[in-house]
Amino acid sequence: MTHLTADDLLGSIKDTQRNEPDSGIIVAVNRGFGKPGLIPLWTGEGHLPTPDFICKAAAEGLRNGETFYTWQRGIPRLREALSRYHEKHFSRPVPADNFFVTGSGMQAIQTVIQLLAGQGDEIIVPTPAWPNYSGPMRMAGVTPVAAPMRFENGHWRLDLQRIFESVTDRTKAICINSPSNPIGCVVPLEDLQDVLGFARKRGLWIIADEVYSRFYYPDNGQLSRAPSFLDICDLDERVIFANTFSKNWAMTGWRVGWVQAPVALGGALERIIQYNTSGTAAFMQRGCVAALEQGEAFADAQVRQARENRDLVCEALSAFPQLRFEVPKGAFYLFFAVEGLSNSLDAVVRIIDEANVGLAPGGTFGEGGEGFLRMCYLRDPAQLKEAIERLGNWLSDARLT
Amino acid sequence: MTHLTADDLLGSIKDTQRNEPDSGIIVAVNRGFGKPGLIPLWTGEGHLPTPDFICKAAAEGLRNGETFYTWQRGIPRLREALSRYHEKHFSRPVPADNFFVTGSGMQAIQTVIQLLAGQGDEIIVPTPAWPNYSGPMRMAGVTPVAAPMRFENGHWRLDLQRIFESVTDRTKAICINSPSNPIGCVVPLEDLQDVLGFARKRGLWIIADEVYSRFYYPDNGQLSRAPSFLDICDLDERVIFANTFSKNWAMTGWRVGWVQAPVALGGALERIIQYNTSGTAAFMQRGCVAALEQGEAFADAQVRQARENRDLVCEALSAFPQLRFEVPKGAFYLFFAVEGLSNSLDAVVRIIDEANVGLAPGGTFGEGGEGFLRMCYLRDPAQLKEAIERLGNWLSDARLT
Repeated sequence: MTHLTADDLLGSIKDTQRNEPDSGIIVAVNRGFGKPGLIPLWTGEGHLPTPDFICKAAAEGLRNGETFYTWQRGIPRLREALSRYHEKHFSRPVPADNFFVTGSGMQAIQTVIQLLAGQGDEIIVPTPAWPNYSGPMRMAGVTPVAAPMRFENGHWRLDLQRIFESVTDRTKAICINSPSNPIGCVVPLEDLQDVLGFARKRGLWIIADEVYSRFYYPDNGQLSRAPSFLDICDLDERVIFANTFSKNWAMTGWRVGWVQAPVALGGALERIIQYNTSGTAAFMQRGCVAALEQGEAFADAQVRQARENRDLVCEALSAFPQLRFEVPKGAFYLFFAVEGLSNSLDAVVRIIDEANVGLAPGGTFGEGGEGFLRMCYLRDPAQLKEAIERLGNWLSDARLT
Repeated sequence: MTHLTADDLLGSIKDTQRNEPDSGIIVAVNRGFGKPGLIPLWTGEGHLPTPDFICKAAAEGLRNGETFYTWQRGIPRLREALSRYHEKHFSRPVPADNFFVTGSGMQAIQTVIQLLAGQGDEIIVPTPAWPNYSGPMRMAGVTPVAAPMRFENGHWRLDLQRIFESVTDRTKAICINSPSNPIGCVVPLEDLQDVLGFARKRGLWIIADEVYSRFYYPDNGQLSRAPSFLDICDLDERVIFANTFSKNWAMTGWRVGWVQAPVALGGALERIIQYNTSGTAAFMQRGCVAALEQGEAFADAQVRQARENRDLVCEALSAFPQLRFEVPKGAFYLFFAVEGLSNSLDAVVRIIDEANVGLAPGGTFGEGGEGFLRMCYLRDPAQLKEAIERLGNWLSDARLT
């Protein structure tokens, strides 16, 4: 009698939650997770587990009984380590007080959205973009406004005009992700300058996702990281960063990230952290300290591997006339268009089932993404070669829709 | 030039975030965290670190390289362990598919709010209540509607009439926390029945926080846990549970919890988890499996200690004529009124500074809470005695305002 149908139950939850589309990445993963022999290139994750010295630091924290509630903003030791790390890589002091530890980079993004915008507000997102910007925006009642990038002469570039014209009196922020997931393109410093100048004039926030900053492959091989808003912004203006330990140090499974924000927002951020997760495990933060303080060699090796793999993947895939892509300058994804592909999610499911390779569907990355597939290439090169061979065979056989 | 003032910056974040009050618990903790010799009874946390067998299971997960992305709903092993745990304690099968692992009990509550309600909606919260219900509601644009409990003849009780009369056409849910934080009262089964009957008639959700279920001290010493909605509800109706590993197994610092919900909501919950935290570390979940499968003796010992401490604290504090409280039947808090106390936050700050004891201010628990202080008594008995002595001296000296 009291047993309700699925329709009854779904009918009484929040409508935006009921109607929210599934992330195509998760659809793919749930389709193929654990499938024997599958080569998973669907998420932004390498094949190496977290290095021992990081795991040991966390295990030591556990042994030392660091299992109690801790500082909502993060343990002081980690915030100081973040400060030193940023000073080293961005050649400017960023005090520990500007950092706020969060339960994942995803949680950092959500925290920033919760801080800046709510029902009826808008945030501009250049697309194709990771669906995990627009998802939490819609969840918070915020409208993500797509500003599709231009793909001209084989190059992706921000459409600055389109971004600026998309601003309304409801716009709270512009979200800039460079190096880009899924495209791998890097926004040049002059474009960052233009966005910052415009945002300053209009009193808008910039949400900077520079998670892949270290994964940067300039032609001259010089710089150790991509151009950053930290090269040009004041610490006390409307620029806020969401970041993660996941990528540099192979810590995807840990779910620890950070926000870098003006110190004046510390109280508000602390309240949001309190009501989101009430902090991050102190023993996990010990691992993060180890990553920052002893993890340079590992991070550099990850970047070198990614760069080599980029060359491998691009060379191999350029043999297929039906594929089209820009050689990525950063991150560790290849985002490639497939001639005749109109439903990337269907294709991804078929590639899992028929070729035993896990990719992500371009359509899930928003406007401009349909017709593309995303491949994460931070993997063992032998696996990548095998995956490309399987994919090549599948492409030759498949009739795409 | 581009440096903005704190007012400028705060002026351009979301107004509800700017105006959200600080949790009085966090104000207290930030005042006294790390103060030498302070006895911390401010948060809901015992003095024991997480037991070794749990830490070791997590450390083993780390050693085994369980550091990759994992199932958004939680690892199957943990969801199955939750199923068995519930069957044991609630004498009914609750399938693994009904469980969703979250990054803390706090995150479980937020997830449930995000699932059920949004801007303009209302959720009814009997008060005094943990401020971490109303905080995340306001953050989501939801209005928490206080339904103050009755404190009559020395007993706290839900005011069912008040709850039912508070329902409007914007009401989405009624939030029931039993055993109660901060009061320690336990809602009798007939009241749970009445709430459920009413909610069924009106198509409302019940959000059940039964985190302290095991911490139950009936006069006859019979039952192993408090009356629960699981005693009376269907698994497929509008009842949803938020829970945590924190209390039973001394895992406050871990930040792992779970939602129990109708299976039909699995897709929606998975999307919310994806956009909140993208899952919980698999190696942490190994520790949680150990807690469920090997943690009965520890949990029982925690409950026994809490019950003894309850008696100790109540006896000691009943010697002070200016204090008034109900002997709690559950949880591990004493919520006591202090004669002449009009500003509990001020008092808590003074007690930290002057008596070196950390308490939580009653005012932060909402309507009906001002004038009270909350003491967590899940501590070493010697520490509790020392804290009560300090508090007694302070009460004799202090002029309260």
